[in-house]
Amino acid sequence: MTSVGTVTAQQMHFAQPLPLRSGATLGAYWLTYETYGTLNADKSNAVLVCHALNASHHVAGVDTAGPEGWWDNLVGPGKPLDTERFFVIGINNPGSCFGSTGPMHANPDPAAQGKPYGADFPVITVEDWVDAQARLIDRLGIGQLAAVIGGSLGGMQALAWTLRYADRVRHCIGVATAPNLSAENIAFNEIARRAIITDPDFHGGHFYAHGVVPRRGLTIARMIGHVTYLSDDVMASKFGRKLRRGAEEGFSFGFDVDFEIESYLRYQGDKFSDYFDANTYLLITRALDYFDPAARFGGDLAKTFAGALAKYLLVSFTTDWRFSPARSRELVKALVTNRQHVSYAEIDAPHGHDAFLLDDPRYHGVLRTYFDRIAEEFA
Amino acid sequence: MTSVGTVTAQQMHFAQPLPLRSGATLGAYWLTYETYGTLNADKSNAVLVCHALNASHHVAGVDTAGPEGWWDNLVGPGKPLDTERFFVIGINNPGSCFGSTGPMHANPDPAAQGKPYGADFPVITVEDWVDAQARLIDRLGIGQLAAVIGGSLGGMQALAWTLRYADRVRHCIGVATAPNLSAENIAFNEIARRAIITDPDFHGGHFYAHGVVPRRGLTIARMIGHVTYLSDDVMASKFGRKLRRGAEEGFSFGFDVDFEIESYLRYQGDKFSDYFDANTYLLITRALDYFDPAARFGGDLAKTFAGALAKYLLVSFTTDWRFSPARSRELVKALVTNRQHVSYAEIDAPHGHDAFLLDDPRYHGVLRTYFDRIAEEFA
Repeated sequence: MTSVGTVTAQQMHFAQPLPLRSGATLGAYWLTYETYGTLNADKSNAVLVCHALNASHHVAGVDTAGPEGWWDNLVGPGKPLDTERFFVIGINNPGSCFGSTGPMHANPDPAAQGKPYGADFPVITVEDWVDAQARLIDRLGIGQLAAVIGGSLGGMQALAWTLRYADRVRHCIGVATAPNLSAENIAFNEIARRAIITDPDFHGGHFYAHGVVPRRGLTIARMIGHVTYLSDDVMASKFGRKLRRGAEEGFSFGFDVDFEIESYLRYQGDKFSDYFDANTYLLITRALDYFDPAARFGGDLAKTFAGALAKYLLVSFTTDWRFSPARSRELVKALVTNRQHVSYAEIDAPHGHDAFLLDDPRYHGVLRTYFDRIAEEFA
Repeated sequence: MTSVGTVTAQQMHFAQPLPLRSGATLGAYWLTYETYGTLNADKSNAVLVCHALNASHHVAGVDTAGPEGWWDNLVGPGKPLDTERFFVIGINNPGSCFGSTGPMHANPDPAAQGKPYGADFPVITVEDWVDAQARLIDRLGIGQLAAVIGGSLGGMQALAWTLRYADRVRHCIGVATAPNLSAENIAFNEIARRAIITDPDFHGGHFYAHGVVPRRGLTIARMIGHVTYLSDDVMASKFGRKLRRGAEEGFSFGFDVDFEIESYLRYQGDKFSDYFDANTYLLITRALDYFDPAARFGGDLAKTFAGALAKYLLVSFTTDWRFSPARSRELVKALVTNRQHVSYAEIDAPHGHDAFLLDDPRYHGVLRTYFDRIAEEFA
């Protein structure tokens, strides 16, 4: 297994505004994407990879943005999602801060006088992202995707594809995902947003003009995220009560770093606030909160998915308390009720929600087998 | 069952400085406390109630501070901790913001020129609190307590009493407590502290002089607290995905309150920042982090408790993920290993960590029976 090597991100411009679920529209916009592998003659081997909160179009290989893609362990020659057989598309969603049009880009509204969108970037939903992705798939000349795959929020996009473009997706692979967020999930998102919005350097979302960044808020948001991505178990084994200075030196009897977990969280928070956009954080967490396709079916998931034509693979991880196995099982139950095709794997992994990014052999084994089966359809 | 009625908080002054675990000392200080019931002739019916993060000496009845005490459902005439039989002492710990000497009081150090301690209030530990409490118990002329009881951080104090003053406690009742905090617990405390410390209105802990309060940080801290006190289950049943404006009106497509859980958390956070002191929050969470009596026994809890003479009752709640039943069971296992007296009740309650403050009939039944048994010792 090797890497896809050096890749170059591409940009595609869309002059036609995108109507959004809110009733607003996103004006002319750019989407950033990468592709790996070769589209076959009948264009039947395309797989779309949807990203979660803190990721982008840069799924595999090394690009000008720097280090290897966020799912490089999954996507490449000979890897479970094998780029020698599949044409893989990584796409960055609008509202992101990694290339596609987002809050830090110029607002085309003449009233904005060329200033960045900032807080005026429209609130965008999972369904809106899927619509934006579908337009890019159109322009690539692909009528039907072999599969859409994503983890966490990316899995929600994969699910939404099968509801919104039922005849354009043969397989939906949702990893560590859920049919909607629980109250507890929304609560953590809300705390993170409040930390950002109440940071004096946020300036109502128009901080770009002030030459500052709401670092404090972003740092707190990321620290909260990290605690919820990890399991209690993995935190216990990785950090436990280990002191940064070693047990002999004991406590500082102050509020600086004593425990390694404190050091880890501060480092992760600081690093994040160096590169992540605060408005993007708000937009993406709100998209998470709002996703709830069953809402207009009175919460009935079976009814929600009744018209879907895709085959599904769902994967969850035992220690994931953010998107727990119980949430995946709700989806499985609905699909089984409808006598739809669904495979489900519950992986006994200690890493919590983060497990979907790691290369646990059982997890990757399940994905490899599933993609092998998909490849037989066009072999 | 009635209330203890109107009570008056009392103050006791201690001229002798309190040596602290850090090596520092707390200068002359006041402790605020309340008592309910009557001390019997041989002073054998005294029960000390230790408070957790957001509580005080005001355990039962109504006092000048306002509403009913935080454990009023437990403590009163005819209640499980029956004030017709027991002499109950509620005590406020030093470092608190509810009466005993704390960071908002004048620093006696001449260099401080009468200014509040602020960030210079010494970091204080569970063991230091217990020492302060023991001095007050001395002054009340009580040689041995019938029991020490506390929930959460209060339970840690109850445990510490049996280690530090083994012959002065007959019974230790620890509810929803733990032998130490897990990495995840410390992580949440650290995030809350960072939110406070990085709030520009914190001014390095000397905000009193600036006439401001780090409200943003305190609000975030409290919101985090609330999410961790509640179970996922109770949040789902209390709030779920309910919208504040009702389902018909749909989403705001903005970052104001959409979901009831957001409204609840903002309200709780705001209210808290009106009355709670930021330095106290730092001090109390640090005391939680540092509590770990087994550390000097290489983590061996059985060895830690080998010299304790008290009888123990431990109670945990199935949905408490902050101080989970597994943590109480560690204590039970150690005490059983030592062939010490221990009773243990694991209550199937949906309310998470907050359950220790509620009057679940099974939970209160266990406490009533246990206190009835204690009362037989001096009847």
